[in-house]
Amino acid sequence: MRVRAPAVVAALLVVGVVVWSQGQTPVFPDARASDPVALGWMAGSPPPADKTVRFADGSFYKFPQTRWAFSHMRELVPTVAVSRGPGPVSALPRAERRDLDAVTFTPIGQSHPMTWGAAFDANYTDGIVVLHRGRIVYERYAGALAAERPHIAFSVTKSFVATLAGILIAEGRLDENATVGSLVPELQRSAFGDASVRQLLDMTAALDYSEDYADEDSPVWNLGRAVGFLPIPAGYTRPPTAYQYLASLTRSSPHGERFIYKTPNTDALGWVLRRVSGQPLSELLRDRIFSRLGAEQDAYFLVDATGVEFAGGGLHMALRDLARFGEAMRLDGTFNGHTIVPKAFVDDVRRGGDRQRFAGAGYKTLPGGSYRSMWWVLHNPHGAYSARGIHGQAIYVDPTAEMVIARFGSHPLGGNVNLDPTSLPAYDALGRHLMVKP
Amino acid sequence: MRVRAPAVVAALLVVGVVVWSQGQTPVFPDARASDPVALGWMAGSPPPADKTVRFADGSFYKFPQTRWAFSHMRELVPTVAVSRGPGPVSALPRAERRDLDAVTFTPIGQSHPMTWGAAFDANYTDGIVVLHRGRIVYERYAGALAAERPHIAFSVTKSFVATLAGILIAEGRLDENATVGSLVPELQRSAFGDASVRQLLDMTAALDYSEDYADEDSPVWNLGRAVGFLPIPAGYTRPPTAYQYLASLTRSSPHGERFIYKTPNTDALGWVLRRVSGQPLSELLRDRIFSRLGAEQDAYFLVDATGVEFAGGGLHMALRDLARFGEAMRLDGTFNGHTIVPKAFVDDVRRGGDRQRFAGAGYKTLPGGSYRSMWWVLHNPHGAYSARGIHGQAIYVDPTAEMVIARFGSHPLGGNVNLDPTSLPAYDALGRHLMVKP
Repeated sequence: MRVRAPAVVAALLVVGVVVWSQGQTPVFPDARASDPVALGWMAGSPPPADKTVRFADGSFYKFPQTRWAFSHMRELVPTVAVSRGPGPVSALPRAERRDLDAVTFTPIGQSHPMTWGAAFDANYTDGIVVLHRGRIVYERYAGALAAERPHIAFSVTKSFVATLAGILIAEGRLDENATVGSLVPELQRSAFGDASVRQLLDMTAALDYSEDYADEDSPVWNLGRAVGFLPIPAGYTRPPTAYQYLASLTRSSPHGERFIYKTPNTDALGWVLRRVSGQPLSELLRDRIFSRLGAEQDAYFLVDATGVEFAGGGLHMALRDLARFGEAMRLDGTFNGHTIVPKAFVDDVRRGGDRQRFAGAGYKTLPGGSYRSMWWVLHNPHGAYSARGIHGQAIYVDPTAEMVIARFGSHPLGGNVNLDPTSLPAYDALGRHLMVKP
Repeated sequence: MRVRAPAVVAALLVVGVVVWSQGQTPVFPDARASDPVALGWMAGSPPPADKTVRFADGSFYKFPQTRWAFSHMRELVPTVAVSRGPGPVSALPRAERRDLDAVTFTPIGQSHPMTWGAAFDANYTDGIVVLHRGRIVYERYAGALAAERPHIAFSVTKSFVATLAGILIAEGRLDENATVGSLVPELQRSAFGDASVRQLLDMTAALDYSEDYADEDSPVWNLGRAVGFLPIPAGYTRPPTAYQYLASLTRSSPHGERFIYKTPNTDALGWVLRRVSGQPLSELLRDRIFSRLGAEQDAYFLVDATGVEFAGGGLHMALRDLARFGEAMRLDGTFNGHTIVPKAFVDDVRRGGDRQRFAGAGYKTLPGGSYRSMWWVLHNPHGAYSARGIHGQAIYVDPTAEMVIARFGSHPLGGNVNLDPTSLPAYDALGRHLMVKP
């Protein structure tokens, strides 16, 4: 009931990056042994002190408490609603299949096959929904998550925010070649001042921003504090809000030369979108996406001390609503009778970004891939593209297999590189199975 | 555009108590001059520093910032959802009437009449809904509030929590004569140990708890900190959570002798309900009331640092859902095809509590009234009863006029005594008007 794993200093927000150090090897309890209901986290009135998950002491972001916290974030931090609007819930017909659990695949780097059913626990999955031709063929939850409960999407948030940008660009309300400084003068003197909106979208802005998880005064930890995701220690002197943090970032080199995944790009994009639209992200997302999807539940954003949404990773929603958005992205942007996302944006994502630049970033589990408008493009035979968040959050669109997968997870390790070996081949195998046995 | 008002040191949670001091007389901007949209609170990205409402510095609870904050509390503090459930929204037919704004009444203590329409601003109303025979005859919002937005209900929360207790008592799951200590051993040694559940419900438990607003180390301020409504200052040494706070309270005299309105009674009752039901209040309220009302919106509770709901004043909901609950209380507890509240509980509330004890508490605007199961009973000719919250939150049920009023407000002064002169006669006049011209 215990699995060995490489030592890790928790990756805060990055996906797809190897984040373990070379030190000692911690052992994490496996999915069943870390089940938050079985462990009794926050059960009882009051829960025992050693079963209480708190924000202020940082315990919510320690494994296995994360297995409870990721489904209960609004109970820990201030949030703003993303309303589903007054319309009816869009239909997701059910055609659940018992054969899928037995589908086998071989994890990357291993020689023994694994089943789809076993991958659920191997990846510390909190919930997964598979749509095939728009029907729910598979749906499963574990631990603290249930169908109606919003779960933190982490960096899957970025794909929503960039898609909002794509909508405004298609309408001519936002110029992707404009510099950030021309749109948000407060960022003129920061790293973002002379970066273009397109460079934010493709993460080619050059920020002096490191992902050194061993140093708790590193930019990635301080971003977490500024946006409201991590508690601010006593006597803290770094920028205490998202905007102050963004304005403090400096440029490391010329923009546009390299793809380096850095979360503040999305928060700067969020600022651009608020300024251009005149709306907070919560309203923009409601008006442009959630109310048109026919979502089942209100979603919500984590906000900082001044009410600014954490665009880089703070969106929470119910899993079937995540699947609905994936289905819209599969169907050229049209779902529930609405053209939600412009087809040109979806087509552009499918074509992908600069593969040579992406190769330089060293994502071992995504060979030949690219990054475009905050979507990950696999450039595999099925033309799959994905939204990816730390600890196993995902939308995976396989247009060839007419399949969409939505997943929430609470993997003890931060980088998706820790999940990809048992998720990407599983997704691919499931898509091929559904094509052969529709 | 400015009104004069007695000097006040903000009343935190109490209703119906005179809270002004004898010192200088501050002047508050009137409702239009304090309109949060006109003033630009939290408008812009970012809002100007002097238009930013924050939790940590306490500015959210200063007037006129409250006019924005009371409709945006979840953006400031951690909260837990009270789901409306998956069912359809219950119908509230509309039959809006233009004649109501001209209904006149004479405010208590004044000689000149005022119109219903003018009372809206006079009371710093954020929103008001009037149901007559189950139809919406009047609905109006101002400032930061809109129909779909939850607003803090303050002590109206108490009436919901006590009604939950009434449901469990009617089912035989809770004995109103049991002592709190026998149900919650953690409270055995506190003031609540030998108080009965009924004494909590009627606020006749004798707590050594003062409402001294001038002393920021007074019990009422410290309650606000413990339950998560107020920021905890650096170096704070008082009990930092709701349960620790409750366990620290001592008894001032024998229980059952006097009616004294003290918010911790409701929080102790909340603990009892959690222990007896095995559910957090958020789930109990969802299962027993919100999902059966056919509510339009999810509601939410403010929670403390350990996730405990603030039973004494932390419920937030949309105004029409507040009206639905009032309508259920008018209709003997039955609404939307469900018996939500036992008729025996509603009948007991209508009969009221001990009027002699109530008279001793000195509520000048409620002569002849009483308090029963955390509902205020007017004992007026129409047999009205009410849920009342600080700064003007209210449910007002007039069974004779077949009228229910639901109101949210952000009056600069704490006690309802400041609103009653222009609200209670207005409600009464409206009820009589609706009877004469149905």
